[in-house]
Amino acid sequence: MNVLSILDTENPVFRGFLFYNSALVLKMLAMSSLTALQRFKNKAFANPEDAAMQGVKVRTDDNVERVRRAHLNDLENIPIYFVASFGYMLTNPSVTVALNLFRAFTAARFMHTFVYAVCVIPQPARGLSWGIGYFITGFMAFQTACHFLH
Amino acid sequence: MNVLSILDTENPVFRGFLFYNSALVLKMLAMSSLTALQRFKNKAFANPEDAAMQGVKVRTDDNVERVRRAHLNDLENIPIYFVASFGYMLTNPSVTVALNLFRAFTAARFMHTFVYAVCVIPQPARGLSWGIGYFITGFMAFQTACHFLH
Amino acid sequence: MNVLSILDTENPVFRGFLFYNSALVLKMLAMSSLTALQRFKNKAFANPEDAAMQGVKVRTDDNVERVRRAHLNDLENIPIYFVASFGYMLTNPSVTVALNLFRAFTAARFMHTFVYAVCVIPQPARGLSWGIGYFITGFMAFQTACHFLH
Repeated sequence: MNVLSILDTENPVFRGFLFYNSALVLKMLAMSSLTALQRFKNKAFANPEDAAMQGVKVRTDDNVERVRRAHLNDLENIPIYFVASFGYMLTNPSVTVALNLFRAFTAARFMHTFVYAVCVIPQPARGLSWGIGYFITGFMAFQTACHFLH
Repeated sequence: MNVLSILDTENPVFRGFLFYNSALVLKMLAMSSLTALQRFKNKAFANPEDAAMQGVKVRTDDNVERVRRAHLNDLENIPIYFVASFGYMLTNPSVTVALNLFRAFTAARFMHTFVYAVCVIPQPARGLSWGIGYFITGFMAFQTACHFLH
Repeated sequence: MNVLSILDTENPVFRGFLFYNSALVLKMLAMSSLTALQRFKNKAFANPEDAAMQGVKVRTDDNVERVRRAHLNDLENIPIYFVASFGYMLTNPSVTVALNLFRAFTAARFMHTFVYAVCVIPQPARGLSWGIGYFITGFMAFQTACHFLH
């Protein structure tokens, strides 16, 4: 099979892949703005030249560090999901299953950011939202590895 | 539409996508070498086994940390751009607009590294070069999400 | 040339690309579990809410930080390899060379994690395994940039 039938902009799985991945990119971009917001709000800068412009010294701040941990968690989890979901799409999965996995992953990562860095909600909210994304990525990578085993 | 007309190695947009993305990969590889260089120059290592080989203790150094912040900024911004520009390419954009966005993003990220970690230039040089990349990625992801909305 | 002959699920290079990249995704997922394991084992948490659940204060720990450095090294090296290897595949390389480069990169990154964060082995084990991956990514990105120069 060549991939023409899959990489077709009429194929709902490929459309979903492109749509939800763009939503995740926009969410990750928002993390940079959220960090900048917290840096200005708490006057906590990492670069001496930025601190000097605000008349303060370089320092760390718990609110800034929390947003940065949420951002780093995105960097650890989302780019590998892009690769896993691309491979999974080529294993010719059921349209319904694939689209719902894309939706669940995207929703879980938005939720993760919300409970981690926007409005801190007690565990297991963060662990659960992280875990959903983790297992979906793992499932997709495992399916892809089995399918293209050689 | 299937993607044959886009993912064609004669298509200037696809060629540009592959060329500029490779240039960005090479730039990111250079960050690792730049960090190593600063580590040896300032004898500031993160691992006890590396510090011991140079007869020093583990310590952090401002010059090393500056290069590492520039590298982390790449990790936050460039992989999501790869995904955004892939999706954007499939929205069938104008060849001129697409190629110039690829060029502008690539130039902005090279500039960002230069003013952040090679030769520190006062703000707004760093903010501007970061912002150009940020808005291009945001624009591409937004266009892709709108195009493949379902 | 359109990419149909390359992005074909019968093409051993494309199959290898999907298989080894999935293996690398699974390896990177394992880093999160390894970090969590070290956090619980050493009772060293980054979030006050997590530390409170275990009745300890937020603190850093050398074993946790070592796994996190190995993970960050993956984030610096593996996502750009995905992009470089995708472009390289489209330069129509020899099947044997391409597959062996995929294998060497994957083996080197598994080795890197092992000697860095699982069972610490003296240098040059870590430097060598990192370097193999670094030069393969650089080679692929350089080949791609030359091939699609415009």
